[in-house]
Amino acid sequence: MESTNFTYVIKQVELALRPYFNEVCVSAGLTPAQYTALTVLERRPGLTSSELARRSFVRAQTMAATIEPLLADGLVRREQDPTHRRRMLLDLTPLGAERLKAVAPRIRAVENLIVAELDEDARQNFARYLRSARHSLDTSGPRPSGRKRATD
Amino acid sequence: MESTNFTYVIKQVELALRPYFNEVCVSAGLTPAQYTALTVLERRPGLTSSELARRSFVRAQTMAATIEPLLADGLVRREQDPTHRRRMLLDLTPLGAERLKAVAPRIRAVENLIVAELDEDARQNFARYLRSARHSLDTSGPRPSGRKRATD
Repeated sequence: MESTNFTYVIKQVELALRPYFNEVCVSAGLTPAQYTALTVLERRPGLTSSELARRSFVRAQTMAATIEPLLADGLVRREQDPTHRRRMLLDLTPLGAERLKAVAPRIRAVENLIVAELDEDARQNFARYLRSARHSLDTSGPRPSGRKRATD
Repeated sequence: MESTNFTYVIKQVELALRPYFNEVCVSAGLTPAQYTALTVLERRPGLTSSELARRSFVRAQTMAATIEPLLADGLVRREQDPTHRRRMLLDLTPLGAERLKAVAPRIRAVENLIVAELDEDARQNFARYLRSARHSLDTSGPRPSGRKRATD
């Protein structure tokens, strides 16, 4: 075994992060999956449900269950793609955008906590390495689960 | 929202990693939690069950359920602490060490995949940043869940 065990440390960081992240989501009246879906739609308006699932690394059925309450609460809307009649596209509503905005300072506090010990250069490198890991894992040949790719 | 969303990317990396990691664990006849517990004991022999839980960022009851089958299968042993009669310490057995050794090449392949695009310096920095994130999240005041600290 080498001294660096990325699998293990990445899992640990995610577990250590989870209570903070969950608290933010609860304060917004959202599940973590719902909050994540909203943030993806904020950055990428007009995704299909299955595109949103791919980008979130979850199954299409899982995403459908996540999205339903958001549609019901008016945080997300689903409309016909103007260029492709049989495709339905998801978008954040103004209410959904407002919900994210309300919780942004809390998310920022968690973000700052994650990189509290790192200077600006290190933060940028850390972000780059994380994206690189996501990319490598996502584009490497046939994956164990057969899950589809979600390049960013 | 800033352009770097660490919460989101860390979660995505963990999700992208999961199918690879799960496949390795299945090939070793272990659950991910069991594999993780064995690797922790490999690096830190002689932990109590609650210390092992803390280091794995899981609840003590969760760890107890994880450890039972490992004890039953003889991959882990539990013995009285020679310096503290009422403490029971967990250790990897030779059989447990062998199981980890058998699966090491597969784990190494996953490790190499995570950092496939990074040179040696970047790998070392990435490992440092991840440990720093774990440390920041772990040592910052009262945590939302009230979970205990697990400094490394």
